[in-house]
Amino acid sequence: MTKRISLLGATGSIGLQTLDIIKEHPNKFQLVSFSAGRNINQTRAILKDFPVEVVSVALEEDALQLQTEFPKLQVVFGDEGLVQVAANTNADVLVNAVLGSVGLKPTLEAIKKGITIAIANKETLVTAGHLVMQAAKENNVPILPVDSEHSALFQAMNGEQRSQISKLIITASGGSFRDYTREELKNVAVKDALNHPNWSMGAKITIDSATMMNKGLEVIEAHILFNTSYDDIEVLLHRESIIHSMVEFNDTSIIAQLGTPDMRVPIQYALSYPDRFERSNAKRLNLAEIGKLHFEEIDYKRYHALKLAIDAGRAGGTMTTVLNAANEAAVALFLQEKIAFLTIDELIERAMNEHINIARPNLETILHVDAETRKNVQNMIK
Amino acid sequence: MTKRISLLGATGSIGLQTLDIIKEHPNKFQLVSFSAGRNINQTRAILKDFPVEVVSVALEEDALQLQTEFPKLQVVFGDEGLVQVAANTNADVLVNAVLGSVGLKPTLEAIKKGITIAIANKETLVTAGHLVMQAAKENNVPILPVDSEHSALFQAMNGEQRSQISKLIITASGGSFRDYTREELKNVAVKDALNHPNWSMGAKITIDSATMMNKGLEVIEAHILFNTSYDDIEVLLHRESIIHSMVEFNDTSIIAQLGTPDMRVPIQYALSYPDRFERSNAKRLNLAEIGKLHFEEIDYKRYHALKLAIDAGRAGGTMTTVLNAANEAAVALFLQEKIAFLTIDELIERAMNEHINIARPNLETILHVDAETRKNVQNMIK
Repeated sequence: MTKRISLLGATGSIGLQTLDIIKEHPNKFQLVSFSAGRNINQTRAILKDFPVEVVSVALEEDALQLQTEFPKLQVVFGDEGLVQVAANTNADVLVNAVLGSVGLKPTLEAIKKGITIAIANKETLVTAGHLVMQAAKENNVPILPVDSEHSALFQAMNGEQRSQISKLIITASGGSFRDYTREELKNVAVKDALNHPNWSMGAKITIDSATMMNKGLEVIEAHILFNTSYDDIEVLLHRESIIHSMVEFNDTSIIAQLGTPDMRVPIQYALSYPDRFERSNAKRLNLAEIGKLHFEEIDYKRYHALKLAIDAGRAGGTMTTVLNAANEAAVALFLQEKIAFLTIDELIERAMNEHINIARPNLETILHVDAETRKNVQNMIK
Repeated sequence: MTKRISLLGATGSIGLQTLDIIKEHPNKFQLVSFSAGRNINQTRAILKDFPVEVVSVALEEDALQLQTEFPKLQVVFGDEGLVQVAANTNADVLVNAVLGSVGLKPTLEAIKKGITIAIANKETLVTAGHLVMQAAKENNVPILPVDSEHSALFQAMNGEQRSQISKLIITASGGSFRDYTREELKNVAVKDALNHPNWSMGAKITIDSATMMNKGLEVIEAHILFNTSYDDIEVLLHRESIIHSMVEFNDTSIIAQLGTPDMRVPIQYALSYPDRFERSNAKRLNLAEIGKLHFEEIDYKRYHALKLAIDAGRAGGTMTTVLNAANEAAVALFLQEKIAFLTIDELIERAMNEHINIARPNLETILHVDAETRKNVQNMIK
């Protein structure tokens, strides 16, 4: 049976790799709708390959232009467009591969419609994980991880009883600056930060890898997806990114998922689950060729953002919303070369310190706190 | 519910560790019968801790002695005694932890009685795997692996579809002499060979580790247990024995099982499966402490016995019986200091070369070939 797929964020790194997977398996997957941002040429190219029903773009003017070019297509735009793509009930699965907390509302709408969620958009879970998981439970909708670490954890749990898990071990490559001291980080430039040693990813997530906020968001995401206490989630430095993460069980056995650093593997797994589909042309892992795998304890002083994230996670309530919004705002400022690399952490910490936490927030409160935090961070550098 | 356990080979290394596990979980496991060899003091000690119904020892005189000391106990002896313990229908599971092909007949008897088999006795599968698996299928009896590598493979397959497995990767520590050249192996002594770097095991299996025949037997065992073609079984040198083995799937994903080198983990898993039971006092794996894991390709010239085993496996028929019997005989001669270390391989190769293979042998043929081969190997050094 063909699985029908909606894709949010088709022109991003995860989005394009999702399209690769759909193309690899034309009898198994069919793209029925997608959203793109402002890259209209790329959107046209995708439309050529995939005859979808609905497409959403960021701007109204682009939507009008596309509508004239593709008269039979339903073209929508903006935040409302995202929701329309997400809530397309002709889809069996929604791949949420947008960046940032903008993915929250569409995800909630898709869940209400009973559409399975394949989630690459970790900010949605970080900012409002309790709302997403609650809605998923109420609507009996699976939330499948796309992130390589969470896919690894999910695969390691396959066939196991959740109650017999004793610990999640999330591996971290250490990002672009793993061999730098905190002192040496003071003057790093945007172009240095964008050069990740193992994975090819978008700009925001590459900066998040360098600060290790990405790993912090992943810890929170793991807590939410697998309902695991923060005491039972460990981060382990593993520079090769070959072991993508591990689960330790109560009998001391550890199950790990390994592979080459290729995001298409976890993307495909989220789409094929509980099956696995052949990837005949993909590079297979050769451990003898790699020779050595390295492991080190995390230095939380060196990776201050990771500590901030875990603190926010433990605090719960709106604190993770603040963490995520402050990080998005600060990373944007860094990419615009308005602040230094280490200032990212500082702005996030300040936003968290200034915030009065609200327990069990509803969607309105979360969206309010999110917007306020972004404004506050902007004001901090004025 | 308590699982009732029969144990063949209680006084060996695996046997004693099986008793540790039963003792750790008095509400989950109960020992109902066991066999021991000639170690009568150890047998008495076990009888004190475990009030069983039936016990078997090697010699009639020891049986008579024990019977006077334990008048309520049923004491049996010899090969027939092994079968009586194995076929004790008060047991739910038979742990077969004897050494060598002597375990074959009792295993087949237990299977006929519908008793689940936890198999540590790899020689039984190597010598007559097709008979064991056929009987298991006919009687709907699970054959659960106890060997750490096969347990790792079995755990990695948990929840997965066998048809989606592309490769089994069995790790090998390299044994006591992994840093020796073939030349340097010429003059190694028995005491050097008995010093395994990672695992604490019996004498025969420690020598098998040094020649890497143990890994060869494991490849054949994996082929039989998981019905995997020899082309899809790979051996990988991994000196730390931390990754106990791995399964590669058709989507390039690899699932591995890791842990400290503690045989009680796979023993317990075979007994608790599909559950896992807490091992609260056991040492947990700390990868940061270990720091590095190493992987190397196997040099089949250096490890000639491994090549012989795979050749025998591919040949099938009675050739694996010859391999195993010749190895048992040759290792015994080495332990008696009658032959040099490298002569072990030579005698096995000669026995294989001289054998005319018989396809699909029955039990009688196998037992005949087994006995003949042992005699032949004895005669080779006269």
